[in-house]
Amino acid sequence: MADSDFRRELAQQLRVDSIRCSAKAGSGHPTSSMSAADLLAVLLDGHLRLDYQAPDDPRNDHLIFSKGHASPLYYSVLKAAGAITDEELLTFRRLDSRLEGHPTPRIPPTDVATGSLGQGLPIGVGIALAGSKLDRLPYRVWVLCGDSEMAEGSIWEAFEHAAHAGLDNLIAIVDVNRLGQTRETMTGWHLERYAERARAFGWHAITVDGHDVDAIEEAYQGAEATTGKPTVVLAKTRKGRGVKAVEDLPGKHGKPLDDPEAAIAELGGVRNLTVRVTRPEVRAKPYAFAVTGAELPTWALGEQVATRQAYGDALLAVGEQRGEVVALDGEVSNSTHSDLFAKQLPDRYFEMFIAEQQMIAAAVGLQVRDWVPYASTFAAFLSRAYDFVRMAAISRADLRLVGSHAGVSIGEDGPSQMALEDMAALRAVHGSTVLHPSDANQTAQLVAQMADRKGISYLRTLRGKTVVRTPSTEDVHIGGSRVLRSSDADEVALLACGITVGEAEAAADLLASQGTTARVIDCYSIKPLDEDTVRAAARDTGLLVTVEDHWPEGGLGDAVLAAVSDLARPPRVHKLAVRIMPTSGTPAELLAAAEIDAPAIAKAVGSLLGR
Amino acid sequence: MADSDFRRELAQQLRVDSIRCSAKAGSGHPTSSMSAADLLAVLLDGHLRLDYQAPDDPRNDHLIFSKGHASPLYYSVLKAAGAITDEELLTFRRLDSRLEGHPTPRIPPTDVATGSLGQGLPIGVGIALAGSKLDRLPYRVWVLCGDSEMAEGSIWEAFEHAAHAGLDNLIAIVDVNRLGQTRETMTGWHLERYAERARAFGWHAITVDGHDVDAIEEAYQGAEATTGKPTVVLAKTRKGRGVKAVEDLPGKHGKPLDDPEAAIAELGGVRNLTVRVTRPEVRAKPYAFAVTGAELPTWALGEQVATRQAYGDALLAVGEQRGEVVALDGEVSNSTHSDLFAKQLPDRYFEMFIAEQQMIAAAVGLQVRDWVPYASTFAAFLSRAYDFVRMAAISRADLRLVGSHAGVSIGEDGPSQMALEDMAALRAVHGSTVLHPSDANQTAQLVAQMADRKGISYLRTLRGKTVVRTPSTEDVHIGGSRVLRSSDADEVALLACGITVGEAEAAADLLASQGTTARVIDCYSIKPLDEDTVRAAARDTGLLVTVEDHWPEGGLGDAVLAAVSDLARPPRVHKLAVRIMPTSGTPAELLAAAEIDAPAIAKAVGSLLGR
Repeated sequence: MADSDFRRELAQQLRVDSIRCSAKAGSGHPTSSMSAADLLAVLLDGHLRLDYQAPDDPRNDHLIFSKGHASPLYYSVLKAAGAITDEELLTFRRLDSRLEGHPTPRIPPTDVATGSLGQGLPIGVGIALAGSKLDRLPYRVWVLCGDSEMAEGSIWEAFEHAAHAGLDNLIAIVDVNRLGQTRETMTGWHLERYAERARAFGWHAITVDGHDVDAIEEAYQGAEATTGKPTVVLAKTRKGRGVKAVEDLPGKHGKPLDDPEAAIAELGGVRNLTVRVTRPEVRAKPYAFAVTGAELPTWALGEQVATRQAYGDALLAVGEQRGEVVALDGEVSNSTHSDLFAKQLPDRYFEMFIAEQQMIAAAVGLQVRDWVPYASTFAAFLSRAYDFVRMAAISRADLRLVGSHAGVSIGEDGPSQMALEDMAALRAVHGSTVLHPSDANQTAQLVAQMADRKGISYLRTLRGKTVVRTPSTEDVHIGGSRVLRSSDADEVALLACGITVGEAEAAADLLASQGTTARVIDCYSIKPLDEDTVRAAARDTGLLVTVEDHWPEGGLGDAVLAAVSDLARPPRVHKLAVRIMPTSGTPAELLAAAEIDAPAIAKAVGSLLGR
Repeated sequence: MADSDFRRELAQQLRVDSIRCSAKAGSGHPTSSMSAADLLAVLLDGHLRLDYQAPDDPRNDHLIFSKGHASPLYYSVLKAAGAITDEELLTFRRLDSRLEGHPTPRIPPTDVATGSLGQGLPIGVGIALAGSKLDRLPYRVWVLCGDSEMAEGSIWEAFEHAAHAGLDNLIAIVDVNRLGQTRETMTGWHLERYAERARAFGWHAITVDGHDVDAIEEAYQGAEATTGKPTVVLAKTRKGRGVKAVEDLPGKHGKPLDDPEAAIAELGGVRNLTVRVTRPEVRAKPYAFAVTGAELPTWALGEQVATRQAYGDALLAVGEQRGEVVALDGEVSNSTHSDLFAKQLPDRYFEMFIAEQQMIAAAVGLQVRDWVPYASTFAAFLSRAYDFVRMAAISRADLRLVGSHAGVSIGEDGPSQMALEDMAALRAVHGSTVLHPSDANQTAQLVAQMADRKGISYLRTLRGKTVVRTPSTEDVHIGGSRVLRSSDADEVALLACGITVGEAEAAADLLASQGTTARVIDCYSIKPLDEDTVRAAARDTGLLVTVEDHWPEGGLGDAVLAAVSDLARPPRVHKLAVRIMPTSGTPAELLAAAEIDAPAIAKAVGSLLGR
């Protein structure tokens, strides 16, 4: 039974604990925590259904602090729920603590890292999609948002998708304390403006005094009773609520209180209440999809197949083998060829439309619930979601990203559609995997292996067809490579990936006709690179030439350099890459213009060897 | 005088020409062009005020195709306006043509490249801000949007900012043809839903039959008459309008018509109408801000100053020297220290709130009108706008980006706030400049030089204070470096940037005490790198150790490797960088944990030298 006095006391405890842990740390965001304390007190006491002693229980509700800087409040909630001790609370922001400056999954039951604003709600959409479409369990997803982050476009991507998908298991709580870091937000305390926007996007919107526990109770009941659409509770609050020295004042963002002792006294002192958070009751298990089984597709040597087509075929096979595999696409599925999966396995396909941030966020949310997402779009447009990928690594998320239409070899569509920075961006993600197969058989093997890969793995596919060079029985693996030709007489090694493998091979033929023997290596795994093979080539030839359909920075060339640079006697390495701004043209014209086609490679080698 | 029949004929011509140029090219998006033909015909004939013979006239209206794939329509408009010949129109998508697959500034008067959806409208906000707040000229900004791109969050960032800034010089026209690449959009032909959203965000919204030229006339008049807020014209259209074989049919996206001759006949054949587009009449010139003049700030050797503080001081000075300099920030101005500029020069400061995509887009829009923008936020959050930066390079935009709070050295806030991939991402932008000064005097010089730098330049600043090592009179320049110590006996060169310069210097002291002589180089310019100095160090020592507060991929280490890898005898290069996922902690603790502090550097050198 709801007891308003208990809730008010609990809220004061959350405020006091937020102040205490921030003061102890010497940094943090207590005022952003204090505004939302009543909202969390009522949520904990009677609405959230989460067994803090069994954080992996699939039936648990999910609670995401999209305003991750309110971490003092989040950790104070953990204490109130009995998940951590008061002693641990006071380790906030220390090197040896699980309680980082912004929440991460290092402290259960935290699903994801937050701290880059506007990400928690779209990730919540992903978890809610899992609950509604995949797990088919009645858990709810509660997301605490700040009002400043309502300016992030990703929030409105989430609003549109959640309504489109009818996610009545998703409840956003917006702590409208009106004050950002330096000034008032654009919308201030005009709650009705937020409500109108939410309603226009298809949500149920409730406005409430965020410091009135009884009104909050009514709002949450209204949210829980809503069917067919998500609910947003828009709560008018005061930043730093309860302490005159900071309440609703500018210049009080992101710093401990000047006089924490006085503030704690003003709030009624330290409390040590524990709240019995409701445990999930339903007995059901997550839904499991039946699978029919399938063999990975294979292609005959010499066939002409686009690797994006092979991706689609392989993804479908992996999906038919494993019920936990799901796919997402940014409304280009007939280009990436995730459409094959979408048609055959529609219950596990998520059309995310042209909203790449929401697509990646949804994938993060799906893997929170142990689904195995593959998310695809044009590789160039993955750059739209780079901050989400960056944060996904901090979330320790296992994601599979697939980018098609890599490089100038796409041809006529021009540079806006050409990914030329994708390998650089994805390599610079902690723990990532970057793959760029040159043919269909390689692609299929790698797609299958990505399913079990930890961290963020990225597959780069080609628009145009390439010849199948790799026998379907050959071992292809993450961290591997393929030596196309090799001899003791090699004077140079050509290292290529994707479209440039064929160019390198043709260049080697050209060079052979001129009396120069070249090794050719297909580096389909850029990160991790097959260092043994690359280093052997360095030792054997002393001259490596890398060729990639990518800017010179951060791609294959740099990966190769990193692999050989601390050899006792490093080789010369020359990078061929795209050094001009490409235009439209045929693929062959553009490869030639960028000087990464066979004649350009042969010419560069000749020059390097002084011939 | 408006002549409805002429407009209808003109629209048919635009359709026919869209079909013709796509057919000739063998690719392109004619159906996405045909839906918007009537909208453009009415715009050209009586509303747009643009002298196509004087595309640089500052009084011109601006026309942006946010749906850049409707390039056949865009180029057909150029022909109808007399800006290109029919012959040039038919060079569409050829290597030797200015008419790329998606519009770029290579063909005047195109302001910016489009083709990544959801970018044209936020860039239009930037141009409209220039018109209203800086140029103070009555030009209008017309943006043609597709309905599919309304799912991009960046569109809603633009809606919020444009209304907040009261931009009645901005008119968005949404071509609601309901069909995306593979299926119907989430909102279909429910124009009123779009209108409700627009109104909730503070816009004037008009719905119209997009094939009724008289209704369109009325809508544009309504838009032009609106004051105090932007207007969106939501037009219900049919994709492929006018040709039964494709009209409103799925599966007809992004390909030439199967039978262009029949389609052209169905549309009434080829026409060669020329429309007299209205020229701007007002006589005013762009506003010029008076400047007071100022010296660049300098600091005494040994002072402790954060480079972010130096950025703020220098930016203010540059602003006081040059009236064309403007600043933008993502609501963290008291962290990046653009607040100093904001307080002193408020007329040239743009608070973009927490909407990084809109911030970068606004900067792109401002530089279209020759303003010189500096845009700042936490370096980590620039990743939110990576696709906008990528496209800005294709737009040939001159942008200055400033990212604060780089690396693990920020300390307690944790990894969500730490930029560790920013140098990799920004290096992999065509024609970019990447700078990371280690002290205040370097920072000031580089900030001043960025004003005249072409392309996208990026300055990375530090949260914590560093000691001023560079005399204020010393030459600091883009492409330069600073040798802290050097001798003929150097056995190793330590190459560092930013926070690690002090660590490298301390490591050299440690090494000296152990009998090892180390050169120390401050590589404050990462791209372009001071190749002469780095290559000399390679030749002199044969062993380079790079140290950076960044992931190992794509940063200083890779820049150094690229500079020395094709020496006749390349040096050994060992990269020290952040190889673990950081947590919270003090800056010193985190530098130590990442093994990029002085003891770790000294230890690594000892190991490399076998001591």
